[in-house]
Amino acid sequence: MPTINDIAVKLGVSKSTVSKALNNAADVSETLKKRILETAVEIGYEKNRIRKDSSKKLCILVENMDYENPMGFGYEIVIGFKQLAVPAGWEVDTIHMTEELQKMVSYDMFMLEHKYQGAFIVGFSLIDPWMKDFKSSNKPAVLYDNYIPENPRTAYVGVNNDEGFDMAIAHLKSLGHKTIGYLGGSLESHVTISRYNAYLHSMEKHGFCIDKSLTGCSYFISECTQKYLPVLLKKHVTAILCSHDSLANAVITHCMQLKYNVPDDISIIGFDDAPFSAYTMPGLTTIRQDRNALGRCGYYALSSLLNKTSISSLLLRAEFIERGSTSKVKKIC
Amino acid sequence: MPTINDIAVKLGVSKSTVSKALNNAADVSETLKKRILETAVEIGYEKNRIRKDSSKKLCILVENMDYENPMGFGYEIVIGFKQLAVPAGWEVDTIHMTEELQKMVSYDMFMLEHKYQGAFIVGFSLIDPWMKDFKSSNKPAVLYDNYIPENPRTAYVGVNNDEGFDMAIAHLKSLGHKTIGYLGGSLESHVTISRYNAYLHSMEKHGFCIDKSLTGCSYFISECTQKYLPVLLKKHVTAILCSHDSLANAVITHCMQLKYNVPDDISIIGFDDAPFSAYTMPGLTTIRQDRNALGRCGYYALSSLLNKTSISSLLLRAEFIERGSTSKVKKIC
Repeated sequence: MPTINDIAVKLGVSKSTVSKALNNAADVSETLKKRILETAVEIGYEKNRIRKDSSKKLCILVENMDYENPMGFGYEIVIGFKQLAVPAGWEVDTIHMTEELQKMVSYDMFMLEHKYQGAFIVGFSLIDPWMKDFKSSNKPAVLYDNYIPENPRTAYVGVNNDEGFDMAIAHLKSLGHKTIGYLGGSLESHVTISRYNAYLHSMEKHGFCIDKSLTGCSYFISECTQKYLPVLLKKHVTAILCSHDSLANAVITHCMQLKYNVPDDISIIGFDDAPFSAYTMPGLTTIRQDRNALGRCGYYALSSLLNKTSISSLLLRAEFIERGSTSKVKKIC
Repeated sequence: MPTINDIAVKLGVSKSTVSKALNNAADVSETLKKRILETAVEIGYEKNRIRKDSSKKLCILVENMDYENPMGFGYEIVIGFKQLAVPAGWEVDTIHMTEELQKMVSYDMFMLEHKYQGAFIVGFSLIDPWMKDFKSSNKPAVLYDNYIPENPRTAYVGVNNDEGFDMAIAHLKSLGHKTIGYLGGSLESHVTISRYNAYLHSMEKHGFCIDKSLTGCSYFISECTQKYLPVLLKKHVTAILCSHDSLANAVITHCMQLKYNVPDDISIIGFDDAPFSAYTMPGLTTIRQDRNALGRCGYYALSSLLNKTSISSLLLRAEFIERGSTSKVKKIC
């Protein structure tokens, strides 16, 4: 279990400074206090030693996503949320949510039983039972990558997909690409619909013709790679944008199997900057969602709902990350 | 000048409780402290009596908008921002900004000279000289109703225009309207472009044909009412959505002059719920931007930028306000 000494070593300050900061002493600067508290949360320093008010309880409900392993997509999201919530005096429980649990009890009842004042909902899909509850629930809920139109007690946080695709298509245009395809998840989730539309809008914005036959969408990665990828290759696309890094990674592998070199024959761009994306062969050019910042946005949105400010959506800036999977379009001889 | 007594009377608590809360005493609950501080800000209790840190300075820069008069559109925006910022220890200056001042000094230099750590920018238009500065500025800036694509040190706050028009068109559809026109400001500002697109998208979403000949956009209200309104009336629109309440109010007056009764012959809907909109004849059905909440959103977004979380946009929920300017479509005999 991490100790005060671990925090002191990590920040290069004395143990007594850490101790004073955790006890909110007046002779430690606010900036240093903040860094010490953030580090305490980051390394998992036992939370009941950090001053808190037991009536202030929030939860992070995570589904379909690893958050306990540093390579998991949810890990930094959870840390980012806690780094703001814990120093503000909140006790935060992170709970692995399942469909079964949702079927047993309604969202509002679950929140009431556990005395949670608000929830950050991560990794839910449209088929989750509570997605219906959120339309009329009373307890504030902030949903990562899901949007509930009807209920002002809910808010949506995510990355600005339009900005992300704009940067990706501008990059491909600058490399001479003109025939740019899109492969993505099925159009049954909020985030895949948003990214598909972002691809279409951005192609139009950059002066390219919109050709829906250059797109393929499926829930199954294998259907994208085995059914749609060959179609796109026959249509001579020189670049493919993918809705997620895991799909982009599979597309790279299948291109190689079909004897297309990435990036010499075809450029591939992902989305998310998942922890593995720096280590694909070649490294994946992608659009980063800063996961720690997403977690912090989750807290900002939730604390605004708790303060009766009905945020509808809060979008984070996208960031373009250029690696080896994109290059200049090949001259046709 | 407001005193501690004014705060006590307004909240129905004792003067000593107010005094204790302002001095952050331990025996006043956090909830009451918050209400007392918010009320102190609201009624303009002299700010240097509220505990603050002189190194923490923010500014609200307002242009083209009255913020000193309770009937002014900017009044509650400024109050909402301060109600969160002042209790958090910030000193907040509200400054009437002009084009001349912007031409004299760059945004970054202005911020540096006055030791402001961030700014909330209200009422700027695309022609303001600093709109170029914001593309590369270093000091965090949150812009109300303006979006800077390039710079992660800026964020955009506003109301969700799509939600607003969705509610308005659903309302008109439920009243039997089918031929719905749009009048709005010129397509040269971020907010008018966004509202024009929201009208088109929402018409399509509700199964209506998109007919751009039923729309008219101009910087001048008089051009909308004198040039475009007669065209729309000739095309037998039964309802008109307007991009702003001030335009909607002018449209009502001109309809009456042209012997069209509002709402019997034609329904009119505005946007904003400006302070005068409850008092037009008939009262204006409109889409509310909660101005106090917009101010608070401005503070949330700014504090997130100051904490190195690059928010791109933060949109507030829209709220539909039904008054007398809309009714069931008239049966054609």
